[in-house]
Amino acid sequence: MNKGTLALLVHGGTENWSAERWKSRFDVVCGDRGVVLLPDAAFDPALVHYAAVWKPAPGELAGLPNLRVIFNLGAGVDALMADSGLPKVPLVRVAVGDLTNRMTEFVVLHVLMHHRQEPYLRECQREKRWAPRFQWPANAISVGIMGLGTLGSNAAEVLGRLGFRVSGWSRSPRQIEGVECFHGTAQLGAFLQRTDVLVCLLPLTSDTRQVLNRGLCARLNRDSPMGAPVLINAGRGGLQNEADILECLDDGTLGGASLDVFAKEPLPPDSPFWTHPKVVVTPHNAADTDPDEISKYVARQIERFEAGGRLENVVDPARGY
Amino acid sequence: MNKGTLALLVHGGTENWSAERWKSRFDVVCGDRGVVLLPDAAFDPALVHYAAVWKPAPGELAGLPNLRVIFNLGAGVDALMADSGLPKVPLVRVAVGDLTNRMTEFVVLHVLMHHRQEPYLRECQREKRWAPRFQWPANAISVGIMGLGTLGSNAAEVLGRLGFRVSGWSRSPRQIEGVECFHGTAQLGAFLQRTDVLVCLLPLTSDTRQVLNRGLCARLNRDSPMGAPVLINAGRGGLQNEADILECLDDGTLGGASLDVFAKEPLPPDSPFWTHPKVVVTPHNAADTDPDEISKYVARQIERFEAGGRLENVVDPARGY
Repeated sequence: MNKGTLALLVHGGTENWSAERWKSRFDVVCGDRGVVLLPDAAFDPALVHYAAVWKPAPGELAGLPNLRVIFNLGAGVDALMADSGLPKVPLVRVAVGDLTNRMTEFVVLHVLMHHRQEPYLRECQREKRWAPRFQWPANAISVGIMGLGTLGSNAAEVLGRLGFRVSGWSRSPRQIEGVECFHGTAQLGAFLQRTDVLVCLLPLTSDTRQVLNRGLCARLNRDSPMGAPVLINAGRGGLQNEADILECLDDGTLGGASLDVFAKEPLPPDSPFWTHPKVVVTPHNAADTDPDEISKYVARQIERFEAGGRLENVVDPARGY
Repeated sequence: MNKGTLALLVHGGTENWSAERWKSRFDVVCGDRGVVLLPDAAFDPALVHYAAVWKPAPGELAGLPNLRVIFNLGAGVDALMADSGLPKVPLVRVAVGDLTNRMTEFVVLHVLMHHRQEPYLRECQREKRWAPRFQWPANAISVGIMGLGTLGSNAAEVLGRLGFRVSGWSRSPRQIEGVECFHGTAQLGAFLQRTDVLVCLLPLTSDTRQVLNRGLCARLNRDSPMGAPVLINAGRGGLQNEADILECLDDGTLGGASLDVFAKEPLPPDSPFWTHPKVVVTPHNAADTDPDEISKYVARQIERFEAGGRLENVVDPARGY
């Protein structure tokens, strides 16, 4: 049987994500299916049935006439959704345990860093000051998670196990044991008002662009035991209004922030976030998933699809995620 | 009925732990039992049946002829055990959920900080460098916990939920679900050899003094995915040989350390730990428990004891904890 080729379109790779590394992983898991790295002028694009992509150029996928499924090699599909030449075939995003676990590591680490006053304690260490400060317990702190998909639900569970009060907000209603769930615009205010640490894991869509702005930050718990509420964004840079966040940090509306994502990446050297004493910057590495796990996930989905089964984690074009 | 008085001997208190704050909490929970702050020259020591103590002076308790129980207001009793004038009555240590939860917060935070390369990422931020590095997943890392009492078991459970491989070592055999348990001198080597992050929660006794020395550090996993193993000590300063630890950090035997406790506290300004790039210093605040919770715990135990019940968490003088 002549199996359709899987094309890899991987741009802007790093040590862990080089196009060649992806190719070597897919060669292993795809068995006798052909795997090709595009662009490749010598290759007939009509042979490609599947594309696995990381930051493809706009319009690049339009040149594959027999494409059946697109697999995005990450969780966020906002860049692909903005491609007006995107073929009208199912678009699948990554949802593997490895990515979920790594995001939970990041969220738990950064919630604990702010909760346990790490920025203050590091300042004390630099100044050689032994100066323990009053420490509130986890059950005095309400962590609010925006976005209750696979990632948000898993992080919520571990935070609850650590003793934090956990609530969550999502577009449509959700029920998660141990988590007070809010949804929709009408319940956003009640959710924000109780929140001491806001964790944003929302997908970036036209509805969520710059949702992390001054108006939202001002609605967080004004009587927080932490002094002022904290923002953690591990979603997308486009979710945040960066000028607003800087203002909120400077006027005390926010007590601190951990930002893994930015409007412009890499974060430019002149960004005030680098040197802001209340900001923890990470280089968009909250959940850098192992190509091994993702390639296996894609291969499993193709196998099931060809056997007549249903694809999982297909993006809804109307919702945008 | 004439209830025996509860005497408080609280020295070296802080904002959260002042003698007056303790007194006000005990006044609330002790009902009609008298509560007295010692030393108090006007008070008859023969009236004291119970003593709740925080760093009492050596010999101070010997002056209470009718003492029935001593309650230590923390988990570690090493300082009390060193008091040759300690009355031969039951000594009870604190084991409340609040203390356990706080210690787990500390352990999980510091394991994640080293696992997720926080020292490196903060250095990048200071240098305005966007330089993500390869990040191993939690399931590639073996966290080894020395001390599998209430604190160690709870931390092990949360670390396991985060995906770490968790093993533990204790003096006598223990069984904890999901944790590979080692015990005794004979199994210490096997435990250390597999450990990438060593968390020490041991009590300080004559057996454990300076157990964290060069010999022990050199037996940790030499092929760690983290490059070199990491030490986290949240037990007692007396557990560590500080000159050895500095040497191990400098020659690469250890890749990093989080130290909450020190041979001399407050840590003297000339200690090399303050400025060591691989060391995270915290001011013995891993588990600063709320006086509210502890005073309730002591009052409950006294009530049960007077009703003929058994005291819980009584120290075994032979073991020393």
